[in-house]
Amino acid sequence: MRALVFEDGKLRFEAGYPVPGRPPGEARIKVTCAGLCATDLAIFNGYMDFAGVPGHEFVGVVVEADGESLTGKRVVGGINAACMKCEVCNRGDETHCPDRTVLGIQGRDGAFAEYLLLPERTLVPVPDEVPDEAAVFSEPIAAALHILDQVTLPDSKLVAVIGDGRLGLLVAQVMANSGCTVDLYGRHPERVKHLSGSEIKHHTGRPLQDRYDLVVECSGSPDGLEAAYGAVRPLGTLVMKSTCAEPVAPNPWQVVVKEINVVGSRCGDVNKALPELAAGRIKTGFMIEEVWTLAEAADKLNSGAATGKLKILIKP
Amino acid sequence: MRALVFEDGKLRFEAGYPVPGRPPGEARIKVTCAGLCATDLAIFNGYMDFAGVPGHEFVGVVVEADGESLTGKRVVGGINAACMKCEVCNRGDETHCPDRTVLGIQGRDGAFAEYLLLPERTLVPVPDEVPDEAAVFSEPIAAALHILDQVTLPDSKLVAVIGDGRLGLLVAQVMANSGCTVDLYGRHPERVKHLSGSEIKHHTGRPLQDRYDLVVECSGSPDGLEAAYGAVRPLGTLVMKSTCAEPVAPNPWQVVVKEINVVGSRCGDVNKALPELAAGRIKTGFMIEEVWTLAEAADKLNSGAATGKLKILIKP
Repeated sequence: MRALVFEDGKLRFEAGYPVPGRPPGEARIKVTCAGLCATDLAIFNGYMDFAGVPGHEFVGVVVEADGESLTGKRVVGGINAACMKCEVCNRGDETHCPDRTVLGIQGRDGAFAEYLLLPERTLVPVPDEVPDEAAVFSEPIAAALHILDQVTLPDSKLVAVIGDGRLGLLVAQVMANSGCTVDLYGRHPERVKHLSGSEIKHHTGRPLQDRYDLVVECSGSPDGLEAAYGAVRPLGTLVMKSTCAEPVAPNPWQVVVKEINVVGSRCGDVNKALPELAAGRIKTGFMIEEVWTLAEAADKLNSGAATGKLKILIKP
Repeated sequence: MRALVFEDGKLRFEAGYPVPGRPPGEARIKVTCAGLCATDLAIFNGYMDFAGVPGHEFVGVVVEADGESLTGKRVVGGINAACMKCEVCNRGDETHCPDRTVLGIQGRDGAFAEYLLLPERTLVPVPDEVPDEAAVFSEPIAAALHILDQVTLPDSKLVAVIGDGRLGLLVAQVMANSGCTVDLYGRHPERVKHLSGSEIKHHTGRPLQDRYDLVVECSGSPDGLEAAYGAVRPLGTLVMKSTCAEPVAPNPWQVVVKEINVVGSRCGDVNKALPELAAGRIKTGFMIEEVWTLAEAADKLNSGAATGKLKILIKP
């Protein structure tokens, strides 16, 4: 099958990569559309020491599974494949199973290929009214919605989101849909014109200091984290939503001085993302800047063509 | 009056420092015993850009106040003097009032002197059965007890405390008194022999990785914070209890990967500390290694005599 392969620090296209053998309990899915994400770009820079087929945002059709009920269905999926046997899984924390594999990130080939495998239990059928180009955003939207499971929204309903990239734009919409007024900080004011009518105000300067009950860090940069530490008010809450490979870190001891609560936030439940897309509550179309084929994606990525792009889709 | 004065980066003894004039609402307190704390040592290294009389752990006798009820009483006090008028004070967060002064730390002369001033509302009478040498620990004990107001104790009741200095030993006792089994990590196993019979186990090695539902960082060092990040299990809670002036910071993005909850924790309510001392539930006597007079303290501090000492008391 066609696939992108990352190995020995290099990304290449393979036309004859082996179609994965299907173990019991897993489904083979024919990928129809995959999304390129900042984590993928980090992986190409060595993050997670990953080797194999990258990619974890996808929508596809089940071509083979244990039961009949999934076969032929269009699906999205949770990206963590847990052991379901250990102490961590037993307490319901499968996304942190120490023996888990993660689609295209850790120990499991991912979505930048014609076919992928995932445990059947992680798959969710996509409603007909959600096109592939929207469904492919399920994973990052689920990650944004996860914040609502972790923190209580402030009475003030005033929230700052740091970073106006893909994740920041999704988080800002989730927060605005929850009744919050969102101050979105970043370098691209033109991006929010697509979100007119929402309670999202874009700012290009540094955030107000000690101002916000709730701040969500989506920049994945030391500068963004420093800005987030500064923007949150004493006794407020800071959600760290993105990661960063840079070793530079801002002074963490201000967490103590301001007695803030810092909440690490990662993957969410894709089940919760689909109704948002079906109802049109989260806009994604404006983020898609390019659509590449697998055959051309490696060369484009190697030549830096993803730099500065909001969202790139890859179709087999 | 006699006082230690920190000015232009230098600490000196003054025999004729002016006795502070008492504004309405404040009490003048004759200090009977003060405690030297890591924050004081940090201040001598430039922390908070403080100038004036340092010292914030104290017990003393009220010699002058607005009303009669406090005069002659032996008291301890909260160290934050808030404006009680601003938005922050109005929502009950006086310890974070942006206009506050802090005893011996920020804009207010402190306890290393014959007399100090504090707002009457911050003062708490000391029960007769608590001697000065125990009551002087009220402020750090309140800081340790503050953790119980901020986090829910884990069902496992297994807690790691990183750092076996003054604060770590108090936090370990508070946690053990709350029914927890405490793994206390540090370099001084001899210190816990005074706490025999408690559920505190001392360890000198690096903490177990991803093991603890709740970790309390009391070392105030980048290495300690790194160890704390490592010891807390995915989805667990890390309380940051101490601060550090060193600019080196461990990688903060592991907060996201492990989805941990980091809780900054500072001052507590001294009202809650005194019953613990009165009932003998927290041992403090074994920590006192030296007792200095004000007249000798500056020379001793300038010659590094505090280094490696658990607790030093300063009496006027």
